Amino acid sequence: MTPPTRPRYPSPGMARIAVVGAGAVGSYYGARLQRAGHDVRFLVRRDLAAVQARGLDIRSVDGDFTLPPGGVHAVATPAGLGQPDWLICALKTTALGSARSLLGPAVGSQTRVVALMNGLNVEEQLARWFGPERVFGAMAFVCINRGEPGVVHHLRYGRLSIGHACDDPDEAARLHDLLAGAGLDVVTSPNLRYARWEKLCWNVPFNGLSVAAGGVGTESILADPPLRALAERAMREVVLAGNADLAARGSSARLPGDETVARLFALTETMGDYATSMALDYLHGRPLEVEAILGEPVRAAAALGVTVPTMDALYALVRAAGLRIRGDLTTIEPAG
Amino acid sequence: MTPPTRPRYPSPGMARIAVVGAGAVGSYYGARLQRAGHDVRFLVRRDLAAVQARGLDIRSVDGDFTLPPGGVHAVATPAGLGQPDWLICALKTTALGSARSLLGPAVGSQTRVVALMNGLNVEEQLARWFGPERVFGAMAFVCINRGEPGVVHHLRYGRLSIGHACDDPDEAARLHDLLAGAGLDVVTSPNLRYARWEKLCWNVPFNGLSVAAGGVGTESILADPPLRALAERAMREVVLAGNADLAARGSSARLPGDETVARLFALTETMGDYATSMALDYLHGRPLEVEAILGEPVRAAAALGVTVPTMDALYALVRAAGLRIRGDLTTIEPAG
Repeated sequence: MTPPTRPRYPSPGMARIAVVGAGAVGSYYGARLQRAGHDVRFLVRRDLAAVQARGLDIRSVDGDFTLPPGGVHAVATPAGLGQPDWLICALKTTALGSARSLLGPAVGSQTRVVALMNGLNVEEQLARWFGPERVFGAMAFVCINRGEPGVVHHLRYGRLSIGHACDDPDEAARLHDLLAGAGLDVVTSPNLRYARWEKLCWNVPFNGLSVAAGGVGTESILADPPLRALAERAMREVVLAGNADLAARGSSARLPGDETVARLFALTETMGDYATSMALDYLHGRPLEVEAILGEPVRAAAALGVTVPTMDALYALVRAAGLRIRGDLTTIEPAG
Repeated sequence: MTPPTRPRYPSPGMARIAVVGAGAVGSYYGARLQRAGHDVRFLVRRDLAAVQARGLDIRSVDGDFTLPPGGVHAVATPAGLGQPDWLICALKTTALGSARSLLGPAVGSQTRVVALMNGLNVEEQLARWFGPERVFGAMAFVCINRGEPGVVHHLRYGRLSIGHACDDPDEAARLHDLLAGAGLDVVTSPNLRYARWEKLCWNVPFNGLSVAAGGVGTESILADPPLRALAERAMREVVLAGNADLAARGSSARLPGDETVARLFALTETMGDYATSMALDYLHGRPLEVEAILGEPVRAAAALGVTVPTMDALYALVRAAGLRIRGDLTTIEPAG
């Protein structure tokens, strides 16, 4: 597979961008890029009519704004995306299996693909399909969720942590410039795998526990000593697994355990009773991103011989919650 | 505190027995003792009118039988129990705090108290109130639950594992004779603490997971590889904690890990999709026996310096389920 050609923006500073996956994250960052002057198309399925009728309404802690009706280039099929400079995949990881058919038609010779998704081994999958040279990862540290169709509630934060699948600094700088140029808070990681594990340090305990404890917010976890202790143990296991993974890949980067725990718990304290995306999916009966956020890290740890009992427990229990949602695990019908 | 005096049965072979706690277990074993000719009184609160009107209907794998209306000596207050030879406490451990006031009036000089309950540190509590010499433990290995008021469904098994709080073999033999004389399957443990941990080897994983996985039966746990693996890890942690506890108490008894896992999983395979008592409590929104079955073992392990991460996780998550039931932990109200 060949590297992507240089970007050929239609006019200086203006990129052609396509966003696949119009959840809260994809809609928000796509709208920010459009507001910054880029040519953005959105692949929208469920909410297409609503988005065409009312545009995109971004209610953001950083300032509300609207892409008006008629001002959102929303398309129903991948063919409508063209072959952009940047193809941002903001699908849920549960839809990763269908990503090839959704993204493939839009990948031209100059197209770069950004996995704006949670979890581990996401770029690796895209790289198998499209070649690692054109693949990037982006992790959004953002408290955000969707309201009614066409409305996004951006509650807090918004930093993007990005990297290139081959850790090519010139390529990473291209994505950095695009995002920073749109006024977004962006940090480039010299090591995308490190950045993935760093994000998992939050997602594993807080997404995992928010579902395993029955659909609760971050404040409930922090306020309950046994749940809080469980969150910390899970986080420390992610650090151990991540560091073993980095070492096995020849990287000298290491996640600092105590500092990570202190920083992420302090951060979470500021979030209010934040509903993780996984808790919202759980409470709405939607598929859970359990394999990308818990299954892949647990399997990575097992392959490396790292013992991660708390992660194992969260994986089994959140997976069971997902099976219940799908009707593949039935609860008891009490007789009495 | 003085030891209990010798039993003074009203006629040879006939004991005066009182059962406090008329759940499935208390009702079943009390009815079996009455059927064997003993004078049994039942302290019944919620279902008193129903039991007086229709008696006790035992639908048992070992043969159905009925204590007819008028043939059940059911009383509403402890004062009605008299001071029996044997006072069987079959309360849920969540009611252990109220046990002193319920049992106390019925404890005469010759009364022996049997804790027919799950969990750890149950006899220890009764012994603080009534003296260890008169306190016994009994664990029921039985698949049983309550139907409509006055009806008990005894599905499978029924063995009682018993011991004396001071491990006095003569005392243990007295209880053994009472129960075996009623045709019950009874095994006397020379070491009650060992017997408690042995029972926890099943209760911790299967009661715990049946709730943590959302209210599922044993078959669902066994059929799902990650849940099954979690059950085994929890069981092995109980073995470790139990053996450390026994060692710390100067006992040479040890739970055999591999044999326990093999035996209890084989046993559980024969249970069908059994609903644990804790799963039924969870699905009915009743208090969960989380402290006796999970909290006390976890605290014992912590005090002994034994690492039990799977038990820790089950404790925190089942406790959270109990808090949700009580309304002390609220789930998210999804906005979208």
